Amino acid sequence: MANYDIQAIVQALHQVRDDWRDSQSRVRDPSARELPSPEAVRHIIEQLKGALFPMRLGPEDLHHENEDYYVGYTLGAALHSLQRQARLELAFNARNGEADAQAISDRAGAAVGALAAQLPAIRRLLDSDVVAAFKGDPAALSVDEILLSYPGIQAIIHHRVAHVLYQHGLRLLARLIAEQAHSRTGIDIHPGAEIGAGFFIDHGTGVVIGETARIGENVRIYQAVTLGAKRFATDEAGNLRKGEPRHPIVEDGVVIYAGATILGRVTLGKGAVIGGNVWVTESVPAGGSVSQASLRREQRDEPGSS
Amino acid sequence: MANYDIQAIVQALHQVRDDWRDSQSRVRDPSARELPSPEAVRHIIEQLKGALFPMRLGPEDLHHENEDYYVGYTLGAALHSLQRQARLELAFNARNGEADAQAISDRAGAAVGALAAQLPAIRRLLDSDVVAAFKGDPAALSVDEILLSYPGIQAIIHHRVAHVLYQHGLRLLARLIAEQAHSRTGIDIHPGAEIGAGFFIDHGTGVVIGETARIGENVRIYQAVTLGAKRFATDEAGNLRKGEPRHPIVEDGVVIYAGATILGRVTLGKGAVIGGNVWVTESVPAGGSVSQASLRREQRDEPGSS
Amino acid sequence: MANYDIQAIVQALHQVRDDWRDSQSRVRDPSARELPSPEAVRHIIEQLKGALFPMRLGPEDLHHENEDYYVGYTLGAALHSLQRQARLELAFNARNGEADAQAISDRAGAAVGALAAQLPAIRRLLDSDVVAAFKGDPAALSVDEILLSYPGIQAIIHHRVAHVLYQHGLRLLARLIAEQAHSRTGIDIHPGAEIGAGFFIDHGTGVVIGETARIGENVRIYQAVTLGAKRFATDEAGNLRKGEPRHPIVEDGVVIYAGATILGRVTLGKGAVIGGNVWVTESVPAGGSVSQASLRREQRDEPGSS
Amino acid sequence: MANYDIQAIVQALHQVRDDWRDSQSRVRDPSARELPSPEAVRHIIEQLKGALFPMRLGPEDLHHENEDYYVGYTLGAALHSLQRQARLELAFNARNGEADAQAISDRAGAAVGALAAQLPAIRRLLDSDVVAAFKGDPAALSVDEILLSYPGIQAIIHHRVAHVLYQHGLRLLARLIAEQAHSRTGIDIHPGAEIGAGFFIDHGTGVVIGETARIGENVRIYQAVTLGAKRFATDEAGNLRKGEPRHPIVEDGVVIYAGATILGRVTLGKGAVIGGNVWVTESVPAGGSVSQASLRREQRDEPGSS
Amino acid sequence: MANYDIQAIVQALHQVRDDWRDSQSRVRDPSARELPSPEAVRHIIEQLKGALFPMRLGPEDLHHENEDYYVGYTLGAALHSLQRQARLELAFNARNGEADAQAISDRAGAAVGALAAQLPAIRRLLDSDVVAAFKGDPAALSVDEILLSYPGIQAIIHHRVAHVLYQHGLRLLARLIAEQAHSRTGIDIHPGAEIGAGFFIDHGTGVVIGETARIGENVRIYQAVTLGAKRFATDEAGNLRKGEPRHPIVEDGVVIYAGATILGRVTLGKGAVIGGNVWVTESVPAGGSVSQASLRREQRDEPGSS
Amino acid sequence: MANYDIQAIVQALHQVRDDWRDSQSRVRDPSARELPSPEAVRHIIEQLKGALFPMRLGPEDLHHENEDYYVGYTLGAALHSLQRQARLELAFNARNGEADAQAISDRAGAAVGALAAQLPAIRRLLDSDVVAAFKGDPAALSVDEILLSYPGIQAIIHHRVAHVLYQHGLRLLARLIAEQAHSRTGIDIHPGAEIGAGFFIDHGTGVVIGETARIGENVRIYQAVTLGAKRFATDEAGNLRKGEPRHPIVEDGVVIYAGATILGRVTLGKGAVIGGNVWVTESVPAGGSVSQASLRREQRDEPGSS
Repeated sequence: MANYDIQAIVQALHQVRDDWRDSQSRVRDPSARELPSPEAVRHIIEQLKGALFPMRLGPEDLHHENEDYYVGYTLGAALHSLQRQARLELAFNARNGEADAQAISDRAGAAVGALAAQLPAIRRLLDSDVVAAFKGDPAALSVDEILLSYPGIQAIIHHRVAHVLYQHGLRLLARLIAEQAHSRTGIDIHPGAEIGAGFFIDHGTGVVIGETARIGENVRIYQAVTLGAKRFATDEAGNLRKGEPRHPIVEDGVVIYAGATILGRVTLGKGAVIGGNVWVTESVPAGGSVSQASLRREQRDEPGSS
Repeated sequence: MANYDIQAIVQALHQVRDDWRDSQSRVRDPSARELPSPEAVRHIIEQLKGALFPMRLGPEDLHHENEDYYVGYTLGAALHSLQRQARLELAFNARNGEADAQAISDRAGAAVGALAAQLPAIRRLLDSDVVAAFKGDPAALSVDEILLSYPGIQAIIHHRVAHVLYQHGLRLLARLIAEQAHSRTGIDIHPGAEIGAGFFIDHGTGVVIGETARIGENVRIYQAVTLGAKRFATDEAGNLRKGEPRHPIVEDGVVIYAGATILGRVTLGKGAVIGGNVWVTESVPAGGSVSQASLRREQRDEPGSS
Repeated sequence: MANYDIQAIVQALHQVRDDWRDSQSRVRDPSARELPSPEAVRHIIEQLKGALFPMRLGPEDLHHENEDYYVGYTLGAALHSLQRQARLELAFNARNGEADAQAISDRAGAAVGALAAQLPAIRRLLDSDVVAAFKGDPAALSVDEILLSYPGIQAIIHHRVAHVLYQHGLRLLARLIAEQAHSRTGIDIHPGAEIGAGFFIDHGTGVVIGETARIGENVRIYQAVTLGAKRFATDEAGNLRKGEPRHPIVEDGVVIYAGATILGRVTLGKGAVIGGNVWVTESVPAGGSVSQASLRREQRDEPGSS
Repeated sequence: MANYDIQAIVQALHQVRDDWRDSQSRVRDPSARELPSPEAVRHIIEQLKGALFPMRLGPEDLHHENEDYYVGYTLGAALHSLQRQARLELAFNARNGEADAQAISDRAGAAVGALAAQLPAIRRLLDSDVVAAFKGDPAALSVDEILLSYPGIQAIIHHRVAHVLYQHGLRLLARLIAEQAHSRTGIDIHPGAEIGAGFFIDHGTGVVIGETARIGENVRIYQAVTLGAKRFATDEAGNLRKGEPRHPIVEDGVVIYAGATILGRVTLGKGAVIGGNVWVTESVPAGGSVSQASLRREQRDEPGSS
Repeated sequence: MANYDIQAIVQALHQVRDDWRDSQSRVRDPSARELPSPEAVRHIIEQLKGALFPMRLGPEDLHHENEDYYVGYTLGAALHSLQRQARLELAFNARNGEADAQAISDRAGAAVGALAAQLPAIRRLLDSDVVAAFKGDPAALSVDEILLSYPGIQAIIHHRVAHVLYQHGLRLLARLIAEQAHSRTGIDIHPGAEIGAGFFIDHGTGVVIGETARIGENVRIYQAVTLGAKRFATDEAGNLRKGEPRHPIVEDGVVIYAGATILGRVTLGKGAVIGGNVWVTESVPAGGSVSQASLRREQRDEPGSS
Repeated sequence: MANYDIQAIVQALHQVRDDWRDSQSRVRDPSARELPSPEAVRHIIEQLKGALFPMRLGPEDLHHENEDYYVGYTLGAALHSLQRQARLELAFNARNGEADAQAISDRAGAAVGALAAQLPAIRRLLDSDVVAAFKGDPAALSVDEILLSYPGIQAIIHHRVAHVLYQHGLRLLARLIAEQAHSRTGIDIHPGAEIGAGFFIDHGTGVVIGETARIGENVRIYQAVTLGAKRFATDEAGNLRKGEPRHPIVEDGVVIYAGATILGRVTLGKGAVIGGNVWVTESVPAGGSVSQASLRREQRDEPGSS
């Protein structure tokens, strides 16, 4: 015998949903799913990975003779499906204003078209990332191993696709793509972050890179590095200002070791080296280095500097 | 030709299993699986998520007209299946004592009934968590995005369900639910922790919240925060005492930034702010704040204080 | 209407792949997949888990009467499949030299045979790990719970299998197995690391253990612990030397608390205790302990010591 | 090395498709699938079976307490999905004329609404069919066995649903549902056929029932019975007239044994018995019987009668 | 907008179910599925096929070295699962009488034990069937082809298993197994039929073999052959008597060509040959033959004989 | 408690397999599956259907823009996989003679190359079959409906592919493809049969077409028609001669109604019409017709003619 009254719970849950929708001023519209589907996005990103690296991340029944055909087929399917998801996101965003279906469809088409056009350039960037990983990790056996098994490469593939969608206003789709990488790799890169060629994250678990971070070329970072916002500083009205540059600028060739925390719109100058576990809230000049040891020394010598 | 002798390995593995079972004083009983199935638990929690948030986490073939029906059907199936898993856990726990099937069934029914009755309240709490995330993250676009993509929300949904099971003695089921969130999000909340409304974890990877932690309302924490036990302190007999309160109390409105470690039964007073990467082993008064800078200052000024 | 020209993108992607293959001096050979398949490896490791712990990690339709049969069948299938993957890896490695199919097949057979022969010993080691977890975590309910739900146990199962493959030159297969555990648990153990019996990782997210680390018996570590290389030190030519011992030696009975970072070929002596969040780049004597407090004291007293 | 030139074959197949589309005066429209999906239809009919007989043909996680919820949820999903398939069929049919989306949507809604309204009546009819099978087959053990295993029941469930769709102009959807039963059971009932309550087909393989057949109540037929059109008779212009009644009328209580062939718009009168393997092209009076023996006799006595 | 009122239909369907259950004097018991699951039975029969012919009908990851292990594992799983299904059937049959769980369990165990014990003998019989097919079909290439592709072999495998269950009172399970073969092959053999070694059905679609048919050794039949009951003959009370021998006896070495219909408890004597499409309702002596031509001749010569 | 002794049954089954292999003079070779896989063949034929009719039988994510890419990709994958299956069949056939791997590979390549080259012609033939179905069935709504739902079209697609493989010596693969159609449609066409353009089978259940049948253009047949061998006639040695023409020749434009049986190497002349259920063992002249009525008349008038 059941120790619960299904009918009562169903009604109570119905009431909570009604209260929630009221609190959110939601109209109860008759349409079904007004939001993109995480499952569909998951499929799209897998298709795009296959189209970008057919012989490594594509299906097993691929051979050189049908490689291009696979790429064309899969791209066509993925972009078409992405367009549908894009329309869902844009229509949802426009739900309280005028919902001009044609305008939404045009914007979705433009965004997806932009991504499509950039795919070859994205692949070139990803090739540079693979090379950077190979050079940066003494344990790497081959570029192929990196594509097959390095979490940092998975994360940057997701990011380079997500970033284009973000730039074209598909922020929820971009976020879903980013979070799927986050779940699998522990690496959390906001789709808004700008990242140059030759980027390498080793190990990666716990890395967080914020929305307005700007990272140059050939930057290397390790697990648990945070490029975050300095949360304490607020504006006069007491509110955090949205969209303002609030994350670090990391110039070319910088290396940031595990566990380092860089906060605020500071600049790590070209070639700077940031030691493990350090806490940085001020800019570091080009070629400079910061480490636990240096911080302690500095701390004793120049007590007011931090 | 095989370079191994399957028969010999099978026998050797059999011997190891026998040794193990002997070492554990296990009876070789003829029944099959005396423990709950992680796969079944995974399915149950997905069903409960669907029942709690049908239009966001339920199936794609859902529309307003069959929303309540879906909730009722899915709840019925999930609770029924949970009851079976609960009986498995309780029977396993009772395996060395008297195994009164009826008593076990009654306890399982009571526990599941309690969860069922609390589901509407759990949904209300989760709504408050979603609102907290929306307010707490300047990058959040909508409450819907949060449900679909924020790892912190996934973790708290799992926790609020797991906590009720934990309270009713289903500790293994609770643990399985918690670990499934941990695997996907990197957020490790022990099902025993008590957590108030409006809880928000941003980014989340590396967060650990211990069994006896008590967290008030509207608390916000960031990635890699630990609310742990102070392991060095032991009792007179040299053993760690089980079940004793050993994790922090975090009062309403506290904010804990990334990487902070709070250890032991200390209290972070109402509205306290704990800075990133700090190491806290003593209580912080209401409205107080601790940061890297303050600690260094304090360290120089009052060397004996920590 | 599509906003993209599939044909143009396919051609551009083809061009990028050609450029890449040229840059990598890759021959365009007619064969299909010259690398092991992550999907196949995932299946193999699941089969091995089932063969090692049939009643806990095997299928639900298992009973004592067909337990050995299951073990024999599954082992046979897994080892056969592993042999094929091993041949793929070895053939790929040999691709620029002479590719003697028989020699490759023999080496694959030898490696898989070695793993097969060690499986009973691996199971004994894993039993010791389970016991260590039970003793080390006051919240653990039973050894069964640990097998079903503790991420640390999943990681060490993967590692103990991967390590044997690594020792026999199957480094890519070993890496794939390790990364699959990393993705699910956030624990990143390089397959080269040597780890003794009774190893326990609690919580685990963010743990990184490097290739040449050597860990004794009954060692316990917590989340976010790094056993890494000291990256600053380079050799005279400015290159990192490969394969050299560069990660810590951790002797029997050591405990390392959450967030501690141990870098370089230092030795943590028998029974040493390393406190949370500390940064260690020098050896610690047997029975010694390092903590935030001790470091600060030391830092003030002996400023030159670090 | 491949013994074929993929590119040449792709082009040749493209050419054949172009020729075909030209021969069919097909516009190459940019939309994808303008026709209903057999896979979607397969899913819908399974859902409807579950909604009609929840405890026998529904999912295994069903219990009395959530039976109605299951029915409501599944019905809602199935009818919604059916409406989409109906729109696809109607739009396809209208492709050469004006394609008024609203009109199409209205007609689809009306057809699906009609089916929905008749479902309770369909269930009552099916109950009568189950009872008829139980009475008609001495080997039947229970009404439950009949639902679970009799091919004739599967065929009549499909038919009763398909017939309503046929009546409302959804002829392709109706056909897909009928053919799916045909494939599984070997029973080929045209969705246009009218069939009264208490209908029972035993064994069933090879049964064919034509579009304009009309079958009364409590009719029983066996394997390989054909209720077909008399093809030889043509009209003056030499064309077969479409839609005209051209299949038999079978009145209440008729029994037709295996292999009998009844052709043309003849009437088998109330309670008539048609023997196995006979060939009937003329009406049989109420209560009459035809058999191999009677035909042979008749054939000798009245040579001109057939 | 929906053209239907889900709630009204759900209620109407509920009413129909209630009416049905009342008409069937069904108790509304709280348990879920009191009947065997066709899906479970489908899985069991596939497992048994694999255990009987591991290298032909078993999984692809099978090799000689783990063949016996596979057989043992799969048998154990299949028989265990079958026991559960058997208990379900027996409990259902006993639902209106006393339901002694132990007695039911014992009977289920006895039945499954009987099947288990007979499996080697069943395999020998099936080997004789394969040989018969190879000898009987000039187009057969090898015994392996027959196992892989001949529908007649699939049907007889199902039958030989189903027949044992039928003999031990598991009539519904037997029926489900038989119907699954029927659906795939168009061959409908009642599980009650007794069939000797070396049985071969060619093509097979439309074959029907009744419950009390008895078939000797080395019998060969073709598509659309019926071994049925003579339905016209009824007993004095006007009812068909259940369980009485009412289907043909077919002695050793008989051949029956396509489309022949043999009705009633007649005997086809040893070595008799029955021509295509003939209709036989009387016994045929050993060595005799019946054909269209012979029947016509007979018909003209001895008009009263049929 | 189990009522069976798994170990004893495993051993007994092992013994039966050994006996069987001895009786078949089988070597126990160490390789695994020496025969083609029905599952692989099923996948290949589905891929080929998709490549032949991409917009009707291909995947749902297909659009005109990626149609050719899909065709190229899928063809490449299917033909590659088919080559592997072809090698398996040829190697198996050669198992008792010399097994020259290169010769086998060449023959497999030649056969698959021949199929590849004929695919465009096959598509043209199938288009003619679709048109024939549309013209031949007054109930057909559109050519699209025919592709989606007519069993006769499924059967002829399978046949036209299987026939090419048969012609190139891949008889087992051809048979597997044919039997998969047989199982789904009840239509059993031997892959050896030669069938001209514009072939239409209506309803189809029970149709059997023998290995040496030759069918002209625009032939139409109905359910349960047999084009078989006249089995009674044997050669002087008492054996059936293999490979000899033994099935009917059906010339252009012939129509054969349901249930007709045509046996032996007879010729149905151009445009002949064969009535339902008739039994034909002699040739019919061009333009001739045979029906139940005509046979009876003939039978009475010319008693010696049959």
